[in-house]
Amino acid sequence: MHLFRLDSSIRIGGSVSRALADSAEQAWLAEHHDAVVTRRDLGVEPLPGDAWGRAVRQSMDPDAPPAEDATALITRLGEELLSADAFVFAVPLYNWNLPTQVKGWIDLLMLHPRIGPYGDRPLAGRPAVLAFSRGGGYGAGTPKEGWDHASPYLKRILGEVWGLDLHVAEAELTLADTNPAMEALRGLAAESLKLGHESAAAHGLRVATLVRA
Amino acid sequence: MHLFRLDSSIRIGGSVSRALADSAEQAWLAEHHDAVVTRRDLGVEPLPGDAWGRAVRQSMDPDAPPAEDATALITRLGEELLSADAFVFAVPLYNWNLPTQVKGWIDLLMLHPRIGPYGDRPLAGRPAVLAFSRGGGYGAGTPKEGWDHASPYLKRILGEVWGLDLHVAEAELTLADTNPAMEALRGLAAESLKLGHESAAAHGLRVATLVRA
Repeated sequence: MHLFRLDSSIRIGGSVSRALADSAEQAWLAEHHDAVVTRRDLGVEPLPGDAWGRAVRQSMDPDAPPAEDATALITRLGEELLSADAFVFAVPLYNWNLPTQVKGWIDLLMLHPRIGPYGDRPLAGRPAVLAFSRGGGYGAGTPKEGWDHASPYLKRILGEVWGLDLHVAEAELTLADTNPAMEALRGLAAESLKLGHESAAAHGLRVATLVRA
Repeated sequence: MHLFRLDSSIRIGGSVSRALADSAEQAWLAEHHDAVVTRRDLGVEPLPGDAWGRAVRQSMDPDAPPAEDATALITRLGEELLSADAFVFAVPLYNWNLPTQVKGWIDLLMLHPRIGPYGDRPLAGRPAVLAFSRGGGYGAGTPKEGWDHASPYLKRILGEVWGLDLHVAEAELTLADTNPAMEALRGLAAESLKLGHESAAAHGLRVATLVRA
């Protein structure tokens, strides 16, 4: 049994997306004591900013500078996904969109011959948890409704393009505890966090059960 | 008179976003012969993938590793915008979202004390053209309607957050000429490109006239 976990928060301590993903991972590991967890941490070890462009240029132009390192990175990122039975993706909302590093990771994977848009959808149907955190509030009727530009795109790529069986565990208002202007929202934030962890644990358990069956 | 131009296509020859931006820029320069154009080309010179994370960590944690280079980059990117009277942003759709490099550029600018969310909105009201290209078709009723996750976000940041007076010139189906599967769409693609250039030139002229007034 093999779990792949992606992290992308630039914070370690205090990261809510990491904490939610921990809840999902622990629920999964409780069912699979001998499981292997492969980790890719874009927050701790960012991908090089020029790899994708060099890889695309090499694929389009025989005279482009060599990009063996970028090609090797694409192969490695692809193998991390292909070898996994289940997935946990921990992603925070940064500047109302996904982390730059996550878009860069997706770009590279889209160049993988099997995982890209001309591939054979090898990940389709495999279970996955998206542990998603948002610093503000984005609910219906709030001033920032519609400003979460990350989760629709993540569902598009992870769920629709790659075909993962995707379940989302999310918490919002995560900045309320440290931002004095959001003090009145701390009760709501605590409730959102509690529900997020419950949802992450339930999804983690569900994924574990699906993979075992 | 001072124009700022952003490019972000990883292609030089054959880039439609660059060609549209050329149309806008030339219309602007025809009205301002002595204008200064400041260029930032993320396709040719990608930003380092780790700069934003290091800058954030330094701002949050006095014990974080120094990030003077990242801070200097933020200052320089901010000055490029602050010194401009008008703007042309050339952006292609990559993997149904904005280029990773453009998100990275926005992240860094969001750390600029004046341009970030706690700043004084110094760019508000300045005229800008977004030259936007999409390889496929995303119109109402088409199979990929809603898959353009870039332009809503670019309008959000450039128009709403920064307050630029933003006008969009766009062309789609730009891959029809080279993708045999899109051969039947070549007529539509040519029409879209023609309209895109006309729109870019009209917006460029309009921006030039606004700035002169």
